[in-house]
Amino acid sequence: MSQQSGFNVAVVGATGAVGQQMIQTLVKENFPYKKLLLLSSSRSAGQKIVVNGEEYTVQEAKPESFEGIDIALFSAGGSVSKELAPEAVKRGAIVVDNTSAFRMDADKPLVVPEVNETDLHQHTGIIANPNCSTIQMVVALEPIRQKFGLKKVIVSTYQAVSGAGAKAVQELMDQTKSILANEPVEPKILPVGSDKNHYQIAFNAIPQIDKFQENGFTFEEMKMINETKKIMHLPELAVSATCVRLPVAVGHSESVYFEIDQENVSADEIKALLKDAPGVILQDDPEDQVYPMPANCVGSNDVFVGRIRKDLDEDQGFHMWVVSDNLLKGAAWNSVQIAQSLVKLGLVKEK
Amino acid sequence: MSQQSGFNVAVVGATGAVGQQMIQTLVKENFPYKKLLLLSSSRSAGQKIVVNGEEYTVQEAKPESFEGIDIALFSAGGSVSKELAPEAVKRGAIVVDNTSAFRMDADKPLVVPEVNETDLHQHTGIIANPNCSTIQMVVALEPIRQKFGLKKVIVSTYQAVSGAGAKAVQELMDQTKSILANEPVEPKILPVGSDKNHYQIAFNAIPQIDKFQENGFTFEEMKMINETKKIMHLPELAVSATCVRLPVAVGHSESVYFEIDQENVSADEIKALLKDAPGVILQDDPEDQVYPMPANCVGSNDVFVGRIRKDLDEDQGFHMWVVSDNLLKGAAWNSVQIAQSLVKLGLVKEK
Repeated sequence: MSQQSGFNVAVVGATGAVGQQMIQTLVKENFPYKKLLLLSSSRSAGQKIVVNGEEYTVQEAKPESFEGIDIALFSAGGSVSKELAPEAVKRGAIVVDNTSAFRMDADKPLVVPEVNETDLHQHTGIIANPNCSTIQMVVALEPIRQKFGLKKVIVSTYQAVSGAGAKAVQELMDQTKSILANEPVEPKILPVGSDKNHYQIAFNAIPQIDKFQENGFTFEEMKMINETKKIMHLPELAVSATCVRLPVAVGHSESVYFEIDQENVSADEIKALLKDAPGVILQDDPEDQVYPMPANCVGSNDVFVGRIRKDLDEDQGFHMWVVSDNLLKGAAWNSVQIAQSLVKLGLVKEK
Repeated sequence: MSQQSGFNVAVVGATGAVGQQMIQTLVKENFPYKKLLLLSSSRSAGQKIVVNGEEYTVQEAKPESFEGIDIALFSAGGSVSKELAPEAVKRGAIVVDNTSAFRMDADKPLVVPEVNETDLHQHTGIIANPNCSTIQMVVALEPIRQKFGLKKVIVSTYQAVSGAGAKAVQELMDQTKSILANEPVEPKILPVGSDKNHYQIAFNAIPQIDKFQENGFTFEEMKMINETKKIMHLPELAVSATCVRLPVAVGHSESVYFEIDQENVSADEIKALLKDAPGVILQDDPEDQVYPMPANCVGSNDVFVGRIRKDLDEDQGFHMWVVSDNLLKGAAWNSVQIAQSLVKLGLVKEK
């Protein structure tokens, strides 16, 4: 890669589960960077990370860190984004933020390139990357909305622990070993590190992701509900969600029921649409037991869709099963993809 | 227990995961048996089983085995039931059958005592025990139907591997050990022992339980749909299901969306109903992170319900999370409970 042309890119939260994937994705997707700045909290600063054969030292993220940066990918928690994203913008960077800090701000685009790439034109410095479980669902729903309209969505999720960070994956593995050895487990992180109680995730299912809201839904469920409406430009869409954490390391799955606007549409028409949809891999052949599973999606940027079938009672109702790598399309890849779109649309200039 | 009074009880499939639970449940619930006959295939015959301190030798199930038997609990697969249940009835036994062999026969009651105990009066010798995932759902839905009516149900399940038998549990544990040791796995049983392909269940989620039907739904999904309508006497109820196998040993969970007939009902009214419902334990306190989980339900006969909340768009729509021990209320306990009901209703006579 030439040192003369390309963009100055910063990754904030470079030592985290998503940050690591962001760095790998920038390399794998040949993102045109000329400088890569790896930033973290003071606690992780000083760590060495090898990127594409070159060793980088992680530096503490400070307002001054963003001098000369063109694009900053943030994934270090909402409070870091709230503090430092405006500082990065003040210094001329465009921020792609993978936290919930700015997602519902009316003046900040919330973008999944396959769905609403053109919203990037309205950006004012910060672009929000949606919640992982929202992204994979809207990628599968958008081609359906475009052709047949969309009235209602009811989703139940089957989410991997890596969505709660690298330490949660370690907790799953440690607990699993303990249980296999008939030793007691001491949950410390899941379901929510900062919540009061922690529960066993190994060989269990926990119907809580993020904290509970006043209305009985969790924040994760409200993210899916509100972000879907915003990304798809469907404020009147009926959406509901039940979000559940599973003993799976990587790969979110979703059982999605949806109702379209048109009558007399067949499951085969939905399948034909999704077969050619951007970012989607159709895996739908019940006869040969072909359907998506988290164990098969790890490491892929795509959204896998299968088990598409028409509801037996509601002519406009359908069911499908949507799986994707929550660290890639759900986070790192979608962020890098937004950066690619910014370059393609001429919305970011090299310094 | 007196040898003089009580019933002669046979357990067919005594060495299987459910059969073992049936025997334990007969003892734990003080079912009034005077003779206990443990039957199995010729392959498992000869095994010794200690019940309540007494050693029993498992015998091969044959038509003649049922001479003098009052109640026969079957859980040895559909083909065994089809062959031997009529033979047992011919010899004067009442059969409680925990397979799918007779569930949809119009002349055979399909019974969950909390819901339709009085259907037992119509029996003609064979009573069917419903599918595990159906039972726990209808126990939670019935009190709601009674008070508010029921129009529609959309369920996504999170099912434990023990529903596929003791060998499937062993497969989960063996695969888990292999993956933790970075060794390859060789799936042989799940998702369906007799189907063509087998997939990894450890740290994965498989959206297939039982074989696929022509309409794209699996047989497990169709069982939930058809059995729910039959048990609840609601042939017009709109029901749909997506059934998913998880790396959980025991305990099925269900994300249930349902619509009632009445308007302006609150989630608190639904909670109040379920708090006093037979067979139900309400675990619903989001503020203190109280909700049901499979790891906490193992060994209990009850159905645990939580996360009850009103849909944000549909006034008559609600969501809930239903968990139960699939080997107990889902199988062994419901079968023994049916036997108890037969005794209580005077429908079985001691020989």
